[in-house]
Amino acid sequence: MKTIIPAVKGTREFYPEQMAVRNYLAEKARQAAEAFGYQEWDGPFLEKIDLYAAKSGEELVKEQSFVFQDRGGELVTLRPELTPSLARMIAARQNELVYPLRWWSFGPFWRYERPQKGRSREFFQWNVDMLGVDSPEADAELIAVAATFLKSVGLQPQEARLFVNNRRLMDARFDALDIPPENRLAVSNLVDRRSKMKPEAWEAYAAEVGLSPAQLDGLKSLLADKDLWKTWEELTRLFDALEALGVRDYVEFDPNIVRGLLYYTGTVFEAFDLTGGVRRAILGGGRYDNLLADVGGEPLAGVGFAMGDVVIGIVLEERGLLPPFPLTPAPVLVTVFDASRWLDSLRLATELRQAGLNVTCYPEPAKLPRQFKFADRMGMRVVVVCGPDEAAAGQVTLKNLADGTQVQVRRAEAAESIRKMLG
Amino acid sequence: MKTIIPAVKGTREFYPEQMAVRNYLAEKARQAAEAFGYQEWDGPFLEKIDLYAAKSGEELVKEQSFVFQDRGGELVTLRPELTPSLARMIAARQNELVYPLRWWSFGPFWRYERPQKGRSREFFQWNVDMLGVDSPEADAELIAVAATFLKSVGLQPQEARLFVNNRRLMDARFDALDIPPENRLAVSNLVDRRSKMKPEAWEAYAAEVGLSPAQLDGLKSLLADKDLWKTWEELTRLFDALEALGVRDYVEFDPNIVRGLLYYTGTVFEAFDLTGGVRRAILGGGRYDNLLADVGGEPLAGVGFAMGDVVIGIVLEERGLLPPFPLTPAPVLVTVFDASRWLDSLRLATELRQAGLNVTCYPEPAKLPRQFKFADRMGMRVVVVCGPDEAAAGQVTLKNLADGTQVQVRRAEAAESIRKMLG
Repeated sequence: MKTIIPAVKGTREFYPEQMAVRNYLAEKARQAAEAFGYQEWDGPFLEKIDLYAAKSGEELVKEQSFVFQDRGGELVTLRPELTPSLARMIAARQNELVYPLRWWSFGPFWRYERPQKGRSREFFQWNVDMLGVDSPEADAELIAVAATFLKSVGLQPQEARLFVNNRRLMDARFDALDIPPENRLAVSNLVDRRSKMKPEAWEAYAAEVGLSPAQLDGLKSLLADKDLWKTWEELTRLFDALEALGVRDYVEFDPNIVRGLLYYTGTVFEAFDLTGGVRRAILGGGRYDNLLADVGGEPLAGVGFAMGDVVIGIVLEERGLLPPFPLTPAPVLVTVFDASRWLDSLRLATELRQAGLNVTCYPEPAKLPRQFKFADRMGMRVVVVCGPDEAAAGQVTLKNLADGTQVQVRRAEAAESIRKMLG
Repeated sequence: MKTIIPAVKGTREFYPEQMAVRNYLAEKARQAAEAFGYQEWDGPFLEKIDLYAAKSGEELVKEQSFVFQDRGGELVTLRPELTPSLARMIAARQNELVYPLRWWSFGPFWRYERPQKGRSREFFQWNVDMLGVDSPEADAELIAVAATFLKSVGLQPQEARLFVNNRRLMDARFDALDIPPENRLAVSNLVDRRSKMKPEAWEAYAAEVGLSPAQLDGLKSLLADKDLWKTWEELTRLFDALEALGVRDYVEFDPNIVRGLLYYTGTVFEAFDLTGGVRRAILGGGRYDNLLADVGGEPLAGVGFAMGDVVIGIVLEERGLLPPFPLTPAPVLVTVFDASRWLDSLRLATELRQAGLNVTCYPEPAKLPRQFKFADRMGMRVVVVCGPDEAAAGQVTLKNLADGTQVQVRRAEAAESIRKMLG
């Protein structure tokens, strides 16, 4: 006996029940994006490693990507994120496309990270971007798309929230604290690490980064100031727009939000589960105004976000928010009474399909109880029997599995009767 | 100025108009599979190379796969086909799953082949399989799913047809010609090459393979015998079932169909475009009864087929069968009259979305003609204006871009009026 070759670590297998969850998330993502007029697109899954050099952080490309030489000797990678492909495709047709451009996508991505709760090496990601507009109202629209999604999967504002900050505001405050520009990346990383470290260790890290005790005090009160946004016009306009878009209750200002990637230039945001199941962000994004120029296009303002399917899947499962999914897309079983009636069962199933029903025909003349048991295990709702007596009378028997009742109807009326039973 | 990093050779970029085609094919595939009760599933995209050792031909694994070592030193491959993952996943839960099992999938695959018309290195493939039944009627169902798809995309029987053969029938005929079992693979390859070679070269090849002149004559009359199926019960039952399933006109017997892969055991079939645009098969499949045992499961009968998205896409484009796709999912544009009315436009767009419409809001207070031009270029159908006068009167102006008419309606009734305009 051979051994079963297992799946690659960090990849996922989608049996029909897992596939239903993936489809559910993709469909809710589609609905939210399309409600706001975003067009679906996709990039290649394989890209040259150079494409990521301009934008992605060193860590993402050098340590977390699946990189390999193909048979032609070219160094390629399984895409770890989508925006570099977005930038390339827009740059290639920059003068033909219609702006403002709103695009969304849902597809596979790969990162060679240690698999753990909320993280797999092969995952799906929803991306939503608007290009060609630089305004807080545009930023608000992206946040509204994200909030619309969270609401549509049943998450209340007290369960999941979007936390917003602004890089230009932070830079202005860092200026006020006399933190020099060359030190800002280090200080941003420091802010980002705070929730993951003990207070003493974090303060020691602050000193290492070069902050004086006065600067550290200044930084700490800055990070505690939940009203800081009221001093910054981009953010007051953002929150006014969020109010008008009906999603203000899903959004909160938080000066601790600094996105890891270097390229955000204005508004940044991340969504978190507030109920504590998973500490990783559900989604994140922000304004990036240099992306196009970085890959060889003309400068073009952009704002967008990305959401992986793993964290949101865990959150919804833990909150009991995943709806029941039907096991089979065909709720109707046409049975095969015996070998002599087999071809006629195929004809009957064909007639019902032509009337628009999804119908499974049992694929052999097994004993009827076995066929009924199959219908039951597959969660079907109506079983159709057409034995010799029914056939002679031009009728079929319909059994409603929900209540066990059964009726005989004329064969020509079977589709309509079944449709009524399915409700 | 930096140069734009190009896409990897053989990959494809899906701008919204290409994405619409991919989605159209996936949706038609879904409808055909689900009409027959198949459940959607998916395997990982990365698999260990060993998984393919048992089933796939040498050429596929050794020469046509993207194989690489991951950062952990493991030899992995981008899946070149789906059935080995299917076999592994079923083998792993062989005793829990409900049989007959009907599964379908639509996803990305990779083969390192020379890109050419009808072939790319990164492509999408539709897979449909039934496991747990061994009967010609089950084979017929798979062929019916394929024919239902071809019909649903507008291909008539005179434009696209499924050609069917049977491996056991061919083996019996090879026996009758005294072709020994160890020579059958070579003879199958010979049959497969016939349409691609000149007659004299092919006859020389036949001699090389070891066929005597008498055997070659026998083989040639065998391959010309379109009635051969009438002598073989599996095929007469298959054609009876195809008749009952309403797809007989899409299917034809052809003794020249030998599928390249070693593992087919009974019925085999391939669909071709009859109009001559592309010579590669649109789809292909057959019965494989050893797949599960080969990967370490218990023996389980199976039948299935796979269709790539590239050939069918070309066929439909060449035949003019791709329907027009709307450029944007939101046919309604809410304009922004001026900066003072901006937030109210966001509110209006939100109200319309809450009423179930997909609505784009122009993202800044540009001049109205520019906003109308945007609506026009995006193929939108209704433009909504709410300037100071309309706002004071509690009204909005709706312009129907199809006929240029416009009406003023009460804001509360805007959604209903728009819905009527959209028809």
